[in-house]
Amino acid sequence: MASIFSRIISGELPSHKIAEDDQFIAFLDITPLVPGHTLVVPKIEVDYIFGLDTDTYSGLWSFARTIAPAIQRAIPCKRVGIAVIGLEVLHTHVHLVPLQTVSDINFERIKMHPGHEELAAIAERIRKEL
Amino acid sequence: MASIFSRIISGELPSHKIAEDDQFIAFLDITPLVPGHTLVVPKIEVDYIFGLDTDTYSGLWSFARTIAPAIQRAIPCKRVGIAVIGLEVLHTHVHLVPLQTVSDINFERIKMHPGHEELAAIAERIRKEL
Repeated sequence: MASIFSRIISGELPSHKIAEDDQFIAFLDITPLVPGHTLVVPKIEVDYIFGLDTDTYSGLWSFARTIAPAIQRAIPCKRVGIAVIGLEVLHTHVHLVPLQTVSDINFERIKMHPGHEELAAIAERIRKEL
Repeated sequence: MASIFSRIISGELPSHKIAEDDQFIAFLDITPLVPGHTLVVPKIEVDYIFGLDTDTYSGLWSFARTIAPAIQRAIPCKRVGIAVIGLEVLHTHVHLVPLQTVSDINFERIKMHPGHEELAAIAERIRKEL
């Protein structure tokens, strides 16, 4: 069965998209740690980041590097932090998280559940900074 | 003043080194989240990962990709997780953390304080898997 991310990539499920090219996509996490929390995902469905082929692995990080500065311009923060965990959704994804404190990238904290209007507004703010 | 990582790179401070080339170094975190927690660091002292030049940024991720599988072979885990936070030591560093659960990459948890003999033994186990 296709991963939830593959279903977003195919358009079967909606997302608040930040950017996309033929190999990669970035969209907002719908249960963010903090506002602006973005997922960067290769379109190829490989479960483990270190299982990606070299070109896709490198391309994923290059793509993330085009997204992070836009997040930082749109969402006031000290840094955009990076996390790759991958114990839940078995489709490689990089978390880009605007940080004020280390607590903002603690995946054990309570997740936020913003409404779609709020997510849409945040996505638009980030896209404008690309 | 040189960062603590620059002082490790120069040899002024000791470390439990995993691997090194002319641009990058990997060594054990001395206050790990879990055993095998490794830092991957560019030798150039740039405080923010997204402030690295393109070649160093890409090279850092390629270097990390050579280290992670050795950690996974040496330290039984489900995944090697990745985190870049950078709110404390202002010298870019990638955390590679052997994961059993998401709690293992919670930077708010109590850090471990293993002795140098224990760290040396873990470093040797990882190096043997490179």
